[in-house]
Amino acid sequence: MLTRVKSAVAGFMGGIMAGGSSGGGGNAGSELPLKFPYMRPEFLGLSADEIECSADHIARPILILKETRRLPWATGYAEVINAGKSALNEDQACCEVVVARRRPMSYCPPSTPSKTPTAKRRNSLPNGEGLGLRMEHSKMGEDSEGLVFHYWALFDGHAGSGAAVVASRLLQHHIACQLQAVIEILRNLASPPPTVLGEEPDNNPYLQGNTPGPHRPTLTRAASLRGAAGAPGSPCSTPPPPRFFTEKRIQHESLVIGAIENAFKDMDAQIEREKHVYNITGGCTALTVVYLLGKLYVGNAGDSRGIIIRNNEIIPMSTEFTPESERQRLQFLGFMQPQLLGNEFTHLEFPRRVQRKEVGKRMLYRDFTMNGWAYKTIEDEDLKFPLIYGEGKKARVLATIGVTRGLGDHDLKVHDSNIYIKPFLSCCPEVKVYNLTQYEHGADDVLVMGTDGLWDVLSNQEVAESVTTFLANCDPDDLHRYTMAAQDLVMRARGVLRDRGWRITNERLGSGDDISVFIIPLMYGNRQP
Amino acid sequence: MLTRVKSAVAGFMGGIMAGGSSGGGGNAGSELPLKFPYMRPEFLGLSADEIECSADHIARPILILKETRRLPWATGYAEVINAGKSALNEDQACCEVVVARRRPMSYCPPSTPSKTPTAKRRNSLPNGEGLGLRMEHSKMGEDSEGLVFHYWALFDGHAGSGAAVVASRLLQHHIACQLQAVIEILRNLASPPPTVLGEEPDNNPYLQGNTPGPHRPTLTRAASLRGAAGAPGSPCSTPPPPRFFTEKRIQHESLVIGAIENAFKDMDAQIEREKHVYNITGGCTALTVVYLLGKLYVGNAGDSRGIIIRNNEIIPMSTEFTPESERQRLQFLGFMQPQLLGNEFTHLEFPRRVQRKEVGKRMLYRDFTMNGWAYKTIEDEDLKFPLIYGEGKKARVLATIGVTRGLGDHDLKVHDSNIYIKPFLSCCPEVKVYNLTQYEHGADDVLVMGTDGLWDVLSNQEVAESVTTFLANCDPDDLHRYTMAAQDLVMRARGVLRDRGWRITNERLGSGDDISVFIIPLMYGNRQP
Repeated sequence: MLTRVKSAVAGFMGGIMAGGSSGGGGNAGSELPLKFPYMRPEFLGLSADEIECSADHIARPILILKETRRLPWATGYAEVINAGKSALNEDQACCEVVVARRRPMSYCPPSTPSKTPTAKRRNSLPNGEGLGLRMEHSKMGEDSEGLVFHYWALFDGHAGSGAAVVASRLLQHHIACQLQAVIEILRNLASPPPTVLGEEPDNNPYLQGNTPGPHRPTLTRAASLRGAAGAPGSPCSTPPPPRFFTEKRIQHESLVIGAIENAFKDMDAQIEREKHVYNITGGCTALTVVYLLGKLYVGNAGDSRGIIIRNNEIIPMSTEFTPESERQRLQFLGFMQPQLLGNEFTHLEFPRRVQRKEVGKRMLYRDFTMNGWAYKTIEDEDLKFPLIYGEGKKARVLATIGVTRGLGDHDLKVHDSNIYIKPFLSCCPEVKVYNLTQYEHGADDVLVMGTDGLWDVLSNQEVAESVTTFLANCDPDDLHRYTMAAQDLVMRARGVLRDRGWRITNERLGSGDDISVFIIPLMYGNRQP
Repeated sequence: MLTRVKSAVAGFMGGIMAGGSSGGGGNAGSELPLKFPYMRPEFLGLSADEIECSADHIARPILILKETRRLPWATGYAEVINAGKSALNEDQACCEVVVARRRPMSYCPPSTPSKTPTAKRRNSLPNGEGLGLRMEHSKMGEDSEGLVFHYWALFDGHAGSGAAVVASRLLQHHIACQLQAVIEILRNLASPPPTVLGEEPDNNPYLQGNTPGPHRPTLTRAASLRGAAGAPGSPCSTPPPPRFFTEKRIQHESLVIGAIENAFKDMDAQIEREKHVYNITGGCTALTVVYLLGKLYVGNAGDSRGIIIRNNEIIPMSTEFTPESERQRLQFLGFMQPQLLGNEFTHLEFPRRVQRKEVGKRMLYRDFTMNGWAYKTIEDEDLKFPLIYGEGKKARVLATIGVTRGLGDHDLKVHDSNIYIKPFLSCCPEVKVYNLTQYEHGADDVLVMGTDGLWDVLSNQEVAESVTTFLANCDPDDLHRYTMAAQDLVMRARGVLRDRGWRITNERLGSGDDISVFIIPLMYGNRQP
């Protein structure tokens, strides 16, 4: 529901919404159709009129779930649009229960995962109708047809909302597709995942003894260079021990992590492919949570953040990927593939721009091998713009982008140049795992997911205190308490409009960015049948 | 002193020691002279005869400081040779007080740091004679001539002892050289390090306002792609804010980190250069501790480890660099520069070798983007040997080496091939900082440095318990207590010879590797004048 309605810009927004070739997912000037129209999260159940009104940059209404609607696990959600940095709210969100259905051993066609009949949403969420009954007849995480997983995701778009909209509609299907290939293995927790499909681990000749492979038959000697007998140049070395080919035992959990990692890559590849057919603007970060077989898998590519608050303890479930946190990776790439820098940028970092008159002087710098700083004599080459420049929220890659992982951005170039940004961006998430079954969770133990609009102005500690205090004052049996807590959190991060600016506690500046928040109670994971 | 003398192999060792072209630092077959002869740490003060006797692979005598000798801060040291994996003890150690003397603003000639008259050892350690008096007349970390730092280092050699011997003799001078360039800045803690030498920070035009540089004058628009007004495609974006060139403020500490990082690079470059003149065999890891102006800087390139034990708490001061911990960096390099794999290796990882008959089947794999695992259809390309192979201590890069950072190894190739290992190795340390002045340290608070021979068999917790228990039973005023604790620790890791093997507590296997340990009491840092 909208806490405030209509505004001065509503009519203006209506104009934007009507046009298929601009605004939501659109790129002014593109002749291609939109893949999906601009939207707010499906589970909010907003009308077109309500969506228009939500984009009021003056009132900045906080959107929450209507009372008739409910997300799985009674998840709370709230969002607010930015203070004017973009016409539309470029954040997107998704929450669904998904079924990955059993398939023969093969990949989903990555090109059309949303059309694959074996991977479909289980029901017409958001209100979860029908889910309860079906779950009673199935064991945890499976039904008769396949593997059930819960899914929450936040996407933070930039330079257009197209990529965020597409990813919010499709990424869960890529995850389902990847999981399909390993359903049987994930169900069979008694046996470790087979190294080769269709082969019993114990029949593997490599575990029996000395069976040299086709290459590198001299492994034994070479491999002993450190830590074993037989090192080169060792006159009194003992004979090498009998040779065993060991085989790594892979955990089931690792297959889920791999599935999520590859799903992000498939999603990014689909956006790249379909750009030739559809108008998909910009790029987006992605923070996803998958609950499967008793564990939460938090996958992050970008600068959103997830934390678990458990019994007043904070457990970070993601790390942010920014020009500063990924500096060395990016500098290493620029150093190894200097053509990506287009003769305009240098992979070296300086504390500020170098001026021509400083050539020959000694200035602080650091390269991809360094965390510290040292002085170097400035050369003409150093007058190029640094690949990484700026501090904190102002840090940029190639003077263009402030986040280093995410989906989309395939066409993004340095302004007025032919230098592409994409080679420096990674679509690969970092996935962290939390075993829900290892702990008993109370009603106030939650996972908070938020886009950077939240975390730019509130610390983990402030968020944890706010949520814990808020929930403590709610009826533990009130299923709306998490939605109310999310609304409270967004309100605290947005603040109130005063003296021409948004202000939060202690007269600090509120966030002028889009803000989206999920609050997921963890006790429902324990309660799964 | 040697705890046991002479052994069955002593005569054999004597033969090795006599030959200049083999054994210590030598490479059988090389016509070049040794840069330095094989040695044990200078501060042990061993005679040639004692050095021979120390290399007894049967008795494995534990070497400690003679009672007449003392290291700075009453540091304890003990070492033992391996159980036969190499003829000589390939670990090396160094402990000195070094003075970096004031110089004009320029680099040391990196080729001859040991000959630079302005960078020399302050006195003839190990017994620290004369140091106390001089220190009384100088402020902490400086004397009238320059900057004083304390230095401890462990080197773990492989494929010969040459690189380890050279690094143990010279690395501290490279650090002194790097620090010379910033002596004045480090002394002046009241002002931040200047961005450009010879320029006052406040006179910098870049801090005043809008002075576009020669490149990328369109920064403001491009830089606003995330997190600020003016994003492309934003119809209602506000005008860009006034433009400021911000300048990063660099901490003094960062200059010391940068100096240590670059000193490692200089050391590695010197070994590479001098290989044409001297016979310098193999490579080595390096773990260094620099105490300067109240802070400990722990630099690590390899798989040695340093931990602080303070009031029964363990503070890790290094992380190990191994094929497993650096897998993604190495795979990324192999992916981007496949020619480095010589058409014999694949950058993909599999749980074991792929067999030809498995082509077409689906097998677990992971690439540089993944921490999880997934299945892929095996192709002919996947029959190549994996770049990273094996688990734990048996993990190898290019089937050859079990450590991924260190010095030397410039000539190391995959056996029977023309594939060099060095491009995959890094000589760059990770440097962690510990501020000694922030805590009051008791007599039992120590920094333990050990080569992997120690940590392979004892956990951090076991080491901390052993050291704490041992020290608690010593007279706090006994300056030998840290040496005795180091001896006890090496004994616990080596174990006793029983049933044809070295055994430690709980019948576990003792370490058959070289083991070297420093135990550095931290209270002496607080006591510095």
